[in-house]
Amino acid sequence: LAAARAAFAARGYDRTTIRSIASDAGVDPALVHHYFGTKADVFAAAVQYPVSPGDILARLTAAGQDGMGAELTGFLVQLAEDPASRGSVLALVRSAVVEDEAAGMLREFISRVLLTAIAPTLPFPEHESRLRLELAVSHLIGVLLVRHVVRLEPLASAPAAEVVARVAPVIQQYFGPRPPSSVAT
Amino acid sequence: LAAARAAFAARGYDRTTIRSIASDAGVDPALVHHYFGTKADVFAAAVQYPVSPGDILARLTAAGQDGMGAELTGFLVQLAEDPASRGSVLALVRSAVVEDEAAGMLREFISRVLLTAIAPTLPFPEHESRLRLELAVSHLIGVLLVRHVVRLEPLASAPAAEVVARVAPVIQQYFGPRPPSSVAT
Repeated sequence: LAAARAAFAARGYDRTTIRSIASDAGVDPALVHHYFGTKADVFAAAVQYPVSPGDILARLTAAGQDGMGAELTGFLVQLAEDPASRGSVLALVRSAVVEDEAAGMLREFISRVLLTAIAPTLPFPEHESRLRLELAVSHLIGVLLVRHVVRLEPLASAPAAEVVARVAPVIQQYFGPRPPSSVAT
Repeated sequence: LAAARAAFAARGYDRTTIRSIASDAGVDPALVHHYFGTKADVFAAAVQYPVSPGDILARLTAAGQDGMGAELTGFLVQLAEDPASRGSVLALVRSAVVEDEAAGMLREFISRVLLTAIAPTLPFPEHESRLRLELAVSHLIGVLLVRHVVRLEPLASAPAAEVVARVAPVIQQYFGPRPPSSVAT
């Protein structure tokens, strides 16, 4: 699974083969097939969220409306910062951009696990809470892409703590008491 | 080029061949080679920014500090909304996530064209202006991905005008007079 995560993160879903994963891991491809099945099965096992959904939910539901921006930002930026989890996070995001199946996996995870549990902790109607959370998450996905994949400077080399300090209060705007759109209307 | 844009947008860089582009366009692959060269050359020609860099720069430099959030947001959201330009925009972003060459192209475009011209219109040191612009652009790239690729609801179906009205004032935080990080320090 470590070899699979490294391969999916480095080469993306399309260019990764079970053969190359088996080779990296020093085992026979038949063994990978035997234990995991298809490439899609290997992917699903490899990009298992690097922390348990239970932990994510506990942190985010505890954050509440006022702490949501900081908690979401700190959580995702740190996840991509830690070498142990960066591979899985980037593999998930990169694959989601090109693979319908992986996009579906990410959509399912965000929609069914994350939003379903977090939305009720915000003081808005369900639809409104979901939209705000999606806008906040979209910013964080963009930050991970620009920082770790496109590697645009100076963002790519900025310390994680500085990124969190700048992004968290901006994202928090989505969880303020009044709709952010009120500024424009 | 229309066939190439459609192919790169739908299948990504890796799975698109000159043969398939030629077939979609009803011409001989040799003709494509003759006029454009390699697949990378076809890509470069196909993902030509759907509006001229000159137009982008004129709009953004005219926006100034107070109008930057609204102008950046309105520009990119509308670009992805218009069926005529959505293909090129998404092809660029999708390919940048998996292809080092395409990531390099996007990095070059944002860094050398966009940031070099826009950063001096903001009242911050160059490094600070670039970092703020990159954070703003990262949010917009994330919105395009979540809205048009991952297609997370309700964001995927929200009217473009509503997306702009919600996102623009949030992004504008990056261009306010005080560093957004001052909230956290």
